[in-house]
Amino acid sequence: RYAPQAEHVPVGRHEPGKVAETHAAIDRRIVEEAAAGRCVVRLKGGDPLVFGRTAQELAVAREHGIPCSIVPGVTSACAAAAEEEFPLTARGTAGAVVFVTGHRMHGVPEPRWDLLARCNETIVVYMGAARAAEIAKRLIDGGRSPAEPTAIVHAASRSERRVRYQRLHELIDGAAEPACKPPCVIVIGPVVRLGKSCPVELGGTVSIGPRNASLVSERRVDA
Amino acid sequence: RYAPQAEHVPVGRHEPGKVAETHAAIDRRIVEEAAAGRCVVRLKGGDPLVFGRTAQELAVAREHGIPCSIVPGVTSACAAAAEEEFPLTARGTAGAVVFVTGHRMHGVPEPRWDLLARCNETIVVYMGAARAAEIAKRLIDGGRSPAEPTAIVHAASRSERRVRYQRLHELIDGAAEPACKPPCVIVIGPVVRLGKSCPVELGGTVSIGPRNASLVSERRVDA
Repeated sequence: RYAPQAEHVPVGRHEPGKVAETHAAIDRRIVEEAAAGRCVVRLKGGDPLVFGRTAQELAVAREHGIPCSIVPGVTSACAAAAEEEFPLTARGTAGAVVFVTGHRMHGVPEPRWDLLARCNETIVVYMGAARAAEIAKRLIDGGRSPAEPTAIVHAASRSERRVRYQRLHELIDGAAEPACKPPCVIVIGPVVRLGKSCPVELGGTVSIGPRNASLVSERRVDA
Repeated sequence: RYAPQAEHVPVGRHEPGKVAETHAAIDRRIVEEAAAGRCVVRLKGGDPLVFGRTAQELAVAREHGIPCSIVPGVTSACAAAAEEEFPLTARGTAGAVVFVTGHRMHGVPEPRWDLLARCNETIVVYMGAARAAEIAKRLIDGGRSPAEPTAIVHAASRSERRVRYQRLHELIDGAAEPACKPPCVIVIGPVVRLGKSCPVELGGTVSIGPRNASLVSERRVDA
């Protein structure tokens, strides 16, 4: 839409119907196109330097002498927080927010869930859908309260987004569907209680479905 | 520029020559203008829900029945990382990034620097200019290596930005000027080593001055 003359090459690896390119193939394509004198835009969702693997692609570009510039973006945690209207930090409640990956690579050590639990700050787990139950258990074992409020936000900023509010221990019970499908972020901490859809008493769970497009204009203040 | 018909009310508290409004006065003004039927845009730098005090303003708006929507933004850590071209997370190096405030409010407990130190993840300290030496000491006391690379980025995304690379222990010695003036973020962790201005050997320190505007176009690939 913004560059009608551009050739659009979808390389998304997790979208249905998309060609699953390996990262090596993406790197190769970037180098080839740039070497041919073309301007290459590598478009990613979120912020490219937060769980975006931009560093690897940048290293390849640097190695081939291709000048680059990186445009920062809105990372999923910020998009989810803005839509649900809870802060990621709050004076006197959370002096820090941790963005951590729930996706464990072969051979890479696990994040220190026990220490993160004890920090008592806001935790946002990226790519944690498959391991939500295990991560919740590790945090509780590390000393985090089982009653801690959590929000699972699926497809933040997209029309098909879904939200589910529940307590930390409920993630262990597997009560996370359908919000807990990739792409999703799991937000853990007292700040979640300030979310616009969060039930005042988190005794049960609440699940919010796809965004109603008309709601957006209803919420706008007319000048 | 984007709304020439709008009335522009500067309420910045830290900029020279600006009127220092209290937060209560800002809240009151928002409520008054909205009650008069006007569309109010509360413009902030960075992401409004990361150390932005948006939650308080939102609470006041909700209390007065003023419908709001929050637009997410690029938080300073992401802006600084994009400009300096280091990732905030990296596979096998940092599975998490922590955004933490260095500004201690009266009566609010200190972040658990000892636990954050031991997590061995990327740490970004917001509003840490005045306490850089003390925070570095707490992290080292908590077990973080004194040799850890750090980057202090002043005024990320602005033309007057400055960057200083050095090791964690050098922050204790106070060798942080002039990058360490507000607004700045202090980025700590091995990912910093990938920054485009980072010296390969961080034996000494390196300080990068204001951005050369012409550099931007030099770095663009011509189509």
